[in-house]
Amino acid sequence: MDEFDLIHSITPRTIHHSSVDVGIGDDAALYTAKHGVQEIVCMDTMVEDVHFKLHYSSPEDIGYKALAVNISDIAAMGGIPKFYLVSLAVPAKWTESEIKAMYEGMNELAKLYHMDLIGGDTVSTSDKLVVTVTVIGEVEKGRACLRSLARPNDIVFVTGEIGSSAAGLSLLLEENNPQNLFLDTDYFINRHKRPQPRVSVGRLCSSIKRAALNDISDGLASELNEIAEASCVSIEIDESILPIHSDLPKLHSNWKEWALFGGEDFELTGTVSKEEWEVLKQECKIRQLPITKIGHVREKTESNVILKTEKTTMALEKKGYNHFK
Amino acid sequence: MDEFDLIHSITPRTIHHSSVDVGIGDDAALYTAKHGVQEIVCMDTMVEDVHFKLHYSSPEDIGYKALAVNISDIAAMGGIPKFYLVSLAVPAKWTESEIKAMYEGMNELAKLYHMDLIGGDTVSTSDKLVVTVTVIGEVEKGRACLRSLARPNDIVFVTGEIGSSAAGLSLLLEENNPQNLFLDTDYFINRHKRPQPRVSVGRLCSSIKRAALNDISDGLASELNEIAEASCVSIEIDESILPIHSDLPKLHSNWKEWALFGGEDFELTGTVSKEEWEVLKQECKIRQLPITKIGHVREKTESNVILKTEKTTMALEKKGYNHFK
Repeated sequence: MDEFDLIHSITPRTIHHSSVDVGIGDDAALYTAKHGVQEIVCMDTMVEDVHFKLHYSSPEDIGYKALAVNISDIAAMGGIPKFYLVSLAVPAKWTESEIKAMYEGMNELAKLYHMDLIGGDTVSTSDKLVVTVTVIGEVEKGRACLRSLARPNDIVFVTGEIGSSAAGLSLLLEENNPQNLFLDTDYFINRHKRPQPRVSVGRLCSSIKRAALNDISDGLASELNEIAEASCVSIEIDESILPIHSDLPKLHSNWKEWALFGGEDFELTGTVSKEEWEVLKQECKIRQLPITKIGHVREKTESNVILKTEKTTMALEKKGYNHFK
Repeated sequence: MDEFDLIHSITPRTIHHSSVDVGIGDDAALYTAKHGVQEIVCMDTMVEDVHFKLHYSSPEDIGYKALAVNISDIAAMGGIPKFYLVSLAVPAKWTESEIKAMYEGMNELAKLYHMDLIGGDTVSTSDKLVVTVTVIGEVEKGRACLRSLARPNDIVFVTGEIGSSAAGLSLLLEENNPQNLFLDTDYFINRHKRPQPRVSVGRLCSSIKRAALNDISDGLASELNEIAEASCVSIEIDESILPIHSDLPKLHSNWKEWALFGGEDFELTGTVSKEEWEVLKQECKIRQLPITKIGHVREKTESNVILKTEKTTMALEKKGYNHFK
């Protein structure tokens, strides 16, 4: 495969943002930042056999997800994704058409958000595929939804449903074979392979007075811990109102673990004041964006995150959990 | 190794640029772009056993070079490097102190340019180390030194000396053992392991009327081909005036190959008008920055890049070269 041919074949034919002054084809990309905004930058890496396996993920799936997880970080800041750069370390056995298919998977998502591919690098490696994506976005000055913005008495919310991605992964790894043939297992698998970043909800959060926000990459418990730590508050959530897919409990007795610690849902979780919650809920309803209240923010106590169940309360650690009552 | 501990240990204690609103520690970094500048973004990847070998490169060397090659891309646009993000795919056998040493190597260079580490990702891999760096810089609006800016009658120049990095690599790979014990082989090895990006010369080029510029990552022949193609001109260089280290010919009969095709010198090569060349040469002299005139730009002919030697002329292709006379 000729590197120059590959670069030519992946160079976009159209540019969505007129602020791109130079895209692919020079030493670096050039763009002009808008006045009155802050630039947002994130970078995430996915490694073969650590984050995905080739026997169940197509090149398109891998490309799609590598971009999706970065867009999700921009969404979690309340921003608009604008540009992306892609760096691939590709094993020699990959064909040019497989590499192009990875870019196709990214392009599918990029088109949706009018994002421009502006740079990157493709190098060979002897072993595992490594995909690194950098996404640049923007948010109106002072409107970013930081983890440190949670305050006591805030409402805690989560978008969509949680645990479905972990369920999908479990199905892909054939850890369990559900007996019930009427279960739509493809739904869960797709939630794992093709997560939908919640850019619209992030944008709504950036438009209200104050919102703390995180995207669920490491699991709800971990993300809420990060918000609680950064904001010096405690967060209490109610197990009975966590939004899950109605089929989730039918898949495996593990379903509560999946919902709390599973991760890779790429939903958003955060906190807003009670007044702003009413606004946010209404705006989401109008746009048919699913969002659920799952708890409250408290003054800081010994535990960062507390789960209330029917019978007890327990501390939710960043990873795993401890019973303390 | 705990991911959160690592993030804490690599998070910079001081921030050079007040424009960094949020650095490491949220979903993404936030910064405010200055008015009147263009943002420059680049991303480069280095893979173990493809770009470096662990038996001759220390973790500090690897970190240093991974950042240096990206700073060099910013220099080749005439820009100032400002921020960097680092993504590591690290084999399990690496210790936390080795990973930190990689960041130390980067920090050594970052301090020199007052750059801030603002984000990235660290993930595990089963096999080879993969280091990806994104650098963000800026250049005054309209002042970027693009490849497409070469014009007929321009002077072609190169900074520093060429071929030394390839010589260093050859010594590291023990392809040749020079007989002459008085040769400073460490000098060449260091040129390969610790290239010096030419930010100051890039800045001078951006301050004059018009300069086409490339950094030498793939070799002089390849970089000049890119300028010639992008500018629709031909470039003629004179072999007798190519700047090389005086010991280079003593190392191996291959030295001309190293100088023209070796790559990884991370010097700058470019073109400016005759009048601007006098200005650039003088400014470089004042600052003790080595720069050498190596040829001229011509109206486009069949060959993009032509090498004049004592006896003949030949076309220099992007990779390898063809004799045509």
